[in-house]
Amino acid sequence: MLLGRVAGTLVASRKEPRLSGLKFLVLQQLDVDNTETGSYVVAADAVGAGVGEVVLYATGSSARQTEFTHERPCDAVVMAIVDTWEVGGDERYHK
Amino acid sequence: MLLGRVAGTLVASRKEPRLSGLKFLVLQQLDVDNTETGSYVVAADAVGAGVGEVVLYATGSSARQTEFTHERPCDAVVMAIVDTWEVGGDERYHK
Amino acid sequence: MLLGRVAGTLVASRKEPRLSGLKFLVLQQLDVDNTETGSYVVAADAVGAGVGEVVLYATGSSARQTEFTHERPCDAVVMAIVDTWEVGGDERYHK
Amino acid sequence: MLLGRVAGTLVASRKEPRLSGLKFLVLQQLDVDNTETGSYVVAADAVGAGVGEVVLYATGSSARQTEFTHERPCDAVVMAIVDTWEVGGDERYHK
Amino acid sequence: MLLGRVAGTLVASRKEPRLSGLKFLVLQQLDVDNTETGSYVVAADAVGAGVGEVVLYATGSSARQTEFTHERPCDAVVMAIVDTWEVGGDERYHK
Repeated sequence: MLLGRVAGTLVASRKEPRLSGLKFLVLQQLDVDNTETGSYVVAADAVGAGVGEVVLYATGSSARQTEFTHERPCDAVVMAIVDTWEVGGDERYHK
Repeated sequence: MLLGRVAGTLVASRKEPRLSGLKFLVLQQLDVDNTETGSYVVAADAVGAGVGEVVLYATGSSARQTEFTHERPCDAVVMAIVDTWEVGGDERYHK
Repeated sequence: MLLGRVAGTLVASRKEPRLSGLKFLVLQQLDVDNTETGSYVVAADAVGAGVGEVVLYATGSSARQTEFTHERPCDAVVMAIVDTWEVGGDERYHK
Repeated sequence: MLLGRVAGTLVASRKEPRLSGLKFLVLQQLDVDNTETGSYVVAADAVGAGVGEVVLYATGSSARQTEFTHERPCDAVVMAIVDTWEVGGDERYHK
Repeated sequence: MLLGRVAGTLVASRKEPRLSGLKFLVLQQLDVDNTETGSYVVAADAVGAGVGEVVLYATGSSARQTEFTHERPCDAVVMAIVDTWEVGGDERYHK
């Protein structure tokens, strides 16, 4: 999994029928020091994450292993809202 | 999922039998500011997207989770036409 | 899917038993303007592609969705021979 | 699989229900000479790895092939603690 | 699939139970001209490859499609020992 910050939302009214009801979030990818890498991903939301929150997202077939994304054409999902992480004993982020 | 602009179409008359009937789109990948990254992908079309439209595409096994691509040797699919997205409260694209 | 040109073939007599009978092609990856990117992939052939032909290849689990590659340890397959594609109304390749 | 050093842990109290009980490790990716590459990944722990240990991790659907991660939205797992590896006859790491 | 040279072996005594019996090889990735790219991967061995041999390896879920790796948390497998390949009519490697 990788870290991301919820930067905003995306709206798509014309889509594959199986996607109806899914909320799409635009994530800015974060490195381990909590700075943006410049990469992004659009992910389905499985946990009710809000703009500005730091989240963990999964990609590939693992992104379909939630109640919301099961058997849907979705390759990225926000599956956790991060409270804190540390590297080398130093806290790099705290919600 | 990532963002792309439909740049054109691709025709392949000799192909794996399971691919018959699929429409192939050439997508220019977009970054979060709606500018082209220089990368491309050829994706199957599951939503009737037209040239010039901004779309969302899924890759890997998730690309087979549509009516059109189920159990086909296809690793990228256009599964939504984008209306709008925003980043940090600013709208970056509006159809 | 991505575009490639069949650059040559690969022979491997000692291999996983499930791979017997598969033909391996060395592909030079192409960008959307039909120039080589410098990357390559070795792919199984599902369509009888010949050296010099421009093809479309799929990777990951989707590479196993052909008659030839089903349940085999193969992560890339040539699944179509390209006739033509266009970008922005301009034909970039014609067989 | 790739090599990583366990740099720390990550806590996420609000998450997809199927993730409850999983321990998340922050891994610094290592190259073959046992130096950090600058990349990281957050992986589930399937072997009880501790901070500072050198581990092997698997990604994608293979990350769900452990007792802890089966059918969970998890795309990276620590599945082995490394004792030693060698390259060209030289030992590059010994626990 | 990609090409690699078996650079050495890796030992991990503490690992996920399903991995017991698997042999791990450290592969240096090769480009199409048979020179090292600087990237590596640790792969399970499904064909009895020895140090110094040039091999073909598969990644992702396809890496689990061998007798040795079925349903194991393994995302890379050596599935063939290469005899020869050619590019543009020139042999680039011969065992």
